[in-house]
Amino acid sequence: MTLSDIERLIQLLAKLPGLGPRSARRAALQLLKKRELLMLPLARALEDAAANIRSCAVCGNLDTADPCGICTDSRRDSASLCVVADVADLWALERAAAFRGRYHVLGGLLSALDGIGPEQLSIAGLQKRIAEGGIKEVILAIAATVDGQTTAHYVADRLEGAGVTITRLAHGVPVGGELDYLDDGTLTQALKARRPI
Amino acid sequence: MTLSDIERLIQLLAKLPGLGPRSARRAALQLLKKRELLMLPLARALEDAAANIRSCAVCGNLDTADPCGICTDSRRDSASLCVVADVADLWALERAAAFRGRYHVLGGLLSALDGIGPEQLSIAGLQKRIAEGGIKEVILAIAATVDGQTTAHYVADRLEGAGVTITRLAHGVPVGGELDYLDDGTLTQALKARRPI
Repeated sequence: MTLSDIERLIQLLAKLPGLGPRSARRAALQLLKKRELLMLPLARALEDAAANIRSCAVCGNLDTADPCGICTDSRRDSASLCVVADVADLWALERAAAFRGRYHVLGGLLSALDGIGPEQLSIAGLQKRIAEGGIKEVILAIAATVDGQTTAHYVADRLEGAGVTITRLAHGVPVGGELDYLDDGTLTQALKARRPI
Repeated sequence: MTLSDIERLIQLLAKLPGLGPRSARRAALQLLKKRELLMLPLARALEDAAANIRSCAVCGNLDTADPCGICTDSRRDSASLCVVADVADLWALERAAAFRGRYHVLGGLLSALDGIGPEQLSIAGLQKRIAEGGIKEVILAIAATVDGQTTAHYVADRLEGAGVTITRLAHGVPVGGELDYLDDGTLTQALKARRPI
C-alpha cells in the first residue's frame, strides 16, 4: 500500500507553524474533501505567491512590486521611519493604520543564543537610508523582550550622531487589559509614564 | 498597494482546520521565507494529491489506487469488517496496527442537527458488501458520542438478520489515563465491564 502522496502532503503541512502532525492530518483530509474549493486554489495561490512576491530592496517588506507599495506611496511621510524586526510586525502596524510613514524591516533580532549578529540584520541598510537624508525621526517599534531591547539599544547606538530623533513605542497598560493580569515590569513602566487626563 | 497574492494565500490557509487568521499569516510568512524548501514542494504535493488520491469505491478509504491498498491486500482477513465514521478513524486504527481485517468508511455520522440522514452515509454500500458474503464479523468502531451511538444503533438495526456478528469497541479507562480525570459514564462502563486479572 503506497500512501506516499498523502503522507508527503501531511509531512509538508506539519512544517507550517501552528500545525502539528495530528492537525496536519486533519488539514490534509479537509483538503482532499474540498479539492476544487480549497486544495487546487491553495496550490495555485502558493505558486503565484512564490513567483510574484519579493522582498522590497529598500525596506524589506514583502510585496508584488519592488520597491514595495509603501516605499513608493507618495502620500506617506518619508521623514518618519519605523524600524520593525519582522514583516509580521509591519503588517500589524498597517492593520492598526496608526502610522503613515515608511518602514524598515531588520529581518530579525540580535540573539546571542541563536547566533544572530548585527551583520545578519539589515542595520547597514538602515544607516545607508538615513545617510541619504530626508529622515527626521526613527521609531524603534521593537518588542520589549530581552533580545528586542538589546537590538533596540544596538540600533540606537549605531544611529547616534546621524542627526535623527530616535524614539521607541510607549510601554504601558494594553487597551482593554486588566491591571491584575499585568506583570510588574509593565505596571512599573505605566506608572512612571503616567500622564494628566 | 496590492497585496492580493499574499492576502489570497492567507485567506486560503485560514480555511484549514487548526489555522485561524493570525496563524495563517504566520504560516504565509514562513512559506515566503522558505520558498524552495517548503512553499513550492507544498504546492506540488497539493496538486499531486488532488490528481492522484481518490476514494476507494469498495470501502471509502483514500488512496492512489481504487480499490485501495487495504481492500486489495490478500494478507488481510476479509471475514472481519471494521466500520468507521471517517477516513481519519481508519488511519488512527492503521497507526495502532491492531486490526488486520478490512474497513468500511461511512463518511460521517447520523446527525439530526446537521441534517445528515442515512442516505448521506455509505450504509447501503455496507449492506451490499455484507450481502455479497464472506464477512463474518462487523466491528462498529464508532465514537461513544450521542451522534456516534445513534449511528451505531442504526447500523446494527439495519444489519440484523444479515447473518453477521456485530460487535463494538470496548469502553473503559484509556491506557495511561488517570481515574480522577475520567467522566462518570466511562468509569461506570469500565466498572461494569471489569475483568479478572
